[in-house]
Amino acid sequence: MSSFNFEGRDFIDIKDYTREELEYIFKIANRMETIAKTGSSLLRGKILASLFFEPSTRTRLSFESAMLRLGGGVIGFAEPSVSSVAKGETLADTVRVVENYADIIVLRHPMEGAAKLAADLASIPVINAGSGTMSHPTQALLDLYTIWREKGKIDGLTIALMGDLKYGRTVKSLAYALSKFNISLVLVAPPQLKMRREVIEDLKSVGMEVKEVTSLEEVIREIDVLYVTRIQKERFPDLSEYEQVRGSYRVDPSILSLGKSDLIVMHPLPRVDELSPEVDKTRHAKYFKQTWYGLLVRMALLALLLGAIK
Amino acid sequence: MSSFNFEGRDFIDIKDYTREELEYIFKIANRMETIAKTGSSLLRGKILASLFFEPSTRTRLSFESAMLRLGGGVIGFAEPSVSSVAKGETLADTVRVVENYADIIVLRHPMEGAAKLAADLASIPVINAGSGTMSHPTQALLDLYTIWREKGKIDGLTIALMGDLKYGRTVKSLAYALSKFNISLVLVAPPQLKMRREVIEDLKSVGMEVKEVTSLEEVIREIDVLYVTRIQKERFPDLSEYEQVRGSYRVDPSILSLGKSDLIVMHPLPRVDELSPEVDKTRHAKYFKQTWYGLLVRMALLALLLGAIK
Amino acid sequence: MSSFNFEGRDFIDIKDYTREELEYIFKIANRMETIAKTGSSLLRGKILASLFFEPSTRTRLSFESAMLRLGGGVIGFAEPSVSSVAKGETLADTVRVVENYADIIVLRHPMEGAAKLAADLASIPVINAGSGTMSHPTQALLDLYTIWREKGKIDGLTIALMGDLKYGRTVKSLAYALSKFNISLVLVAPPQLKMRREVIEDLKSVGMEVKEVTSLEEVIREIDVLYVTRIQKERFPDLSEYEQVRGSYRVDPSILSLGKSDLIVMHPLPRVDELSPEVDKTRHAKYFKQTWYGLLVRMALLALLLGAIK
Repeated sequence: MSSFNFEGRDFIDIKDYTREELEYIFKIANRMETIAKTGSSLLRGKILASLFFEPSTRTRLSFESAMLRLGGGVIGFAEPSVSSVAKGETLADTVRVVENYADIIVLRHPMEGAAKLAADLASIPVINAGSGTMSHPTQALLDLYTIWREKGKIDGLTIALMGDLKYGRTVKSLAYALSKFNISLVLVAPPQLKMRREVIEDLKSVGMEVKEVTSLEEVIREIDVLYVTRIQKERFPDLSEYEQVRGSYRVDPSILSLGKSDLIVMHPLPRVDELSPEVDKTRHAKYFKQTWYGLLVRMALLALLLGAIK
Repeated sequence: MSSFNFEGRDFIDIKDYTREELEYIFKIANRMETIAKTGSSLLRGKILASLFFEPSTRTRLSFESAMLRLGGGVIGFAEPSVSSVAKGETLADTVRVVENYADIIVLRHPMEGAAKLAADLASIPVINAGSGTMSHPTQALLDLYTIWREKGKIDGLTIALMGDLKYGRTVKSLAYALSKFNISLVLVAPPQLKMRREVIEDLKSVGMEVKEVTSLEEVIREIDVLYVTRIQKERFPDLSEYEQVRGSYRVDPSILSLGKSDLIVMHPLPRVDELSPEVDKTRHAKYFKQTWYGLLVRMALLALLLGAIK
Repeated sequence: MSSFNFEGRDFIDIKDYTREELEYIFKIANRMETIAKTGSSLLRGKILASLFFEPSTRTRLSFESAMLRLGGGVIGFAEPSVSSVAKGETLADTVRVVENYADIIVLRHPMEGAAKLAADLASIPVINAGSGTMSHPTQALLDLYTIWREKGKIDGLTIALMGDLKYGRTVKSLAYALSKFNISLVLVAPPQLKMRREVIEDLKSVGMEVKEVTSLEEVIREIDVLYVTRIQKERFPDLSEYEQVRGSYRVDPSILSLGKSDLIVMHPLPRVDELSPEVDKTRHAKYFKQTWYGLLVRMALLALLLGAIK
């Protein structure tokens, strides 16, 4: 019997959940592995409103698949042009209408704080699938779950985040989520794209060990997890500057051969140049598995927030 | 046992249904209240084709939710660009194809008479979700049902329609639908946007009492229902003229405080300026409830036309 | 008991299937006729990913209806703008992500060989719904099934393909598919749009009897099946040339009255001018029925590839 209460709650920010609650979600996600292959009627009669005011196929399909696997149904839209927003409706009104049509809302919206606003208004649970410049917390949740599944634990690991750590939303969210565990964090970024001072201070203030380097070579031997993200050309005013850093932040089998044999490589996808397709065939590659784990975690979340699993 | 026969019929114009038939739909809608929360397998194995040649999120999601709540499935499109129309297919051919894929069609189309045409061709029921400048009859149906539910009856009420009564499709449809009942109608509109003479003549010819005023203050004390619609800036050649009328057609708590304590305020949504968000918290506000009633009425309609309820 | 094994296979090219396998699919399609009206739970818990990188309502709705009729669920997108492709993701990566969300993929993509590539990568079955300039093989499959159902056999028939035989993808695919049977093929096209030499050589090399004519009148008396396709104005550099051939390739009741009484007329749809709506009412018209048969064949294919029918 669980002493947690998930029914009716929102999932807006991973900070709203304790480490113990996250670990409970992971346990439920484990149980979803069978259902994800065979289907279930756990949420039969329930409806998910999938409201994507910004397109995001991967996240949308993941949530919709999760709901269908649990026996529920899905309504919604994949882009704003087909929504009432075009008619000037406020998000608040959209939410108060849609809550009459569904049992749970998954929302992606370009406006900062949109998911929080929706959650405050709606009488049904709201899951944040990204609002404004904040990454969606279910990405951080599935990242944690991937590490937990693949390494058997999170505590005690040395985890490197690499790429654009200044503007990248995913890495920032993940860093905060990791601060609930006892890990060593390694930040690998070019000087122009280092993680912001205040974020690092936040992380250190809760006791996290944080190291900053500018090249993967410096730390490849000591890390257990390498989380790769894209470096966007647009971030560099001078293209030659971009060309210079580009190569150093591309992961391929040769650099990985220097690391631990059980090093895992993760990526939020889609990837472009920063992660060579040659890595796909190595034992290190876990980024497609991450997608599978994402499905399990979202199934767990839907079942818990809708009270189908206590 | 009912003496009505709904199975296999279309729902193109509310005029095609008698008052008794409408009231029977309302009774079935009442019964849908539980199912709308728990789900059902009444329409398991049935498919709704949701064909929106014009986007309309609210109406589309309402129908799709209704179908899913009844255990059926949904196929379709939310906008014309993804349809075969782009390849020059006639609506007639689209309908004759789609009737092979589904058990019932919900159609929204910019062309006048499109729903009627589709209904004439299809061997399966067609529900008009709006065609051309005619409002969709399920909006009028849910408006009637909202009044019936909230006031316990329709006969004997004094009902005000306010806003753009000249071009507004929803109010015109609702006025005709109300003429099946014994009510007093009050029309509140600026001179430029008064309801057309011929419509008023039609309503009076079936014995309806109709009063026209230019300000809500004149009638606020006597009405039981206030149906608010938007006044569009574009209707005024002179913007200063618009600014002048604007304020008088905005509903807020202070004007409502002058009315009956059980006055209900309705709106087809989306709203913009004409209905203050402050009204939301008052006991008068029924416009979000209207959305819920819309779901129930559409569930009833789907179940009846598909013969799942006799 | 069947000696065929369909479970887990892809459907990329009709040539990958033997005549015996095709006939087995047809037998299963026959069995789907009842289910297509009542629904079934044969694929309950299974998910179809419907990935349309090019819009195609007819094909998409047909597959989605087929999946729902069998009790399964559907996720996907109807056009590329809402997909991750906009973010530069490769098709390969999309497939490796989506295979985690679904049990079978139906893919339409503008790139030549896209379906083959997807099938090679995915661990779940992939059905080609059109890639590049190749027609989708389920169209040829449903065309064959329509003939088989309507004429009781395919062998021994005289089958005319008419219209743009040079650029038309559907007719080319169908011609190859027909070469698995013993039929007489008649090609009816204006000189500018004759079927390419190499295709005709291919067909003849497997023993097919092929005759080429430029007008339908020449052969109308001897054919059992008339397969009509569109002639696109854009194919003619000189518009007057188009106007000249146009009339001769339009099928109407008067030309059909010269043919066999049990001649059937087929068309892949959508049609424009080449097939008069007056034909619809004649006993010859089978093009809407073709749509129905398409549903049955796709239901059979989904059930077979997913191993629900052995």
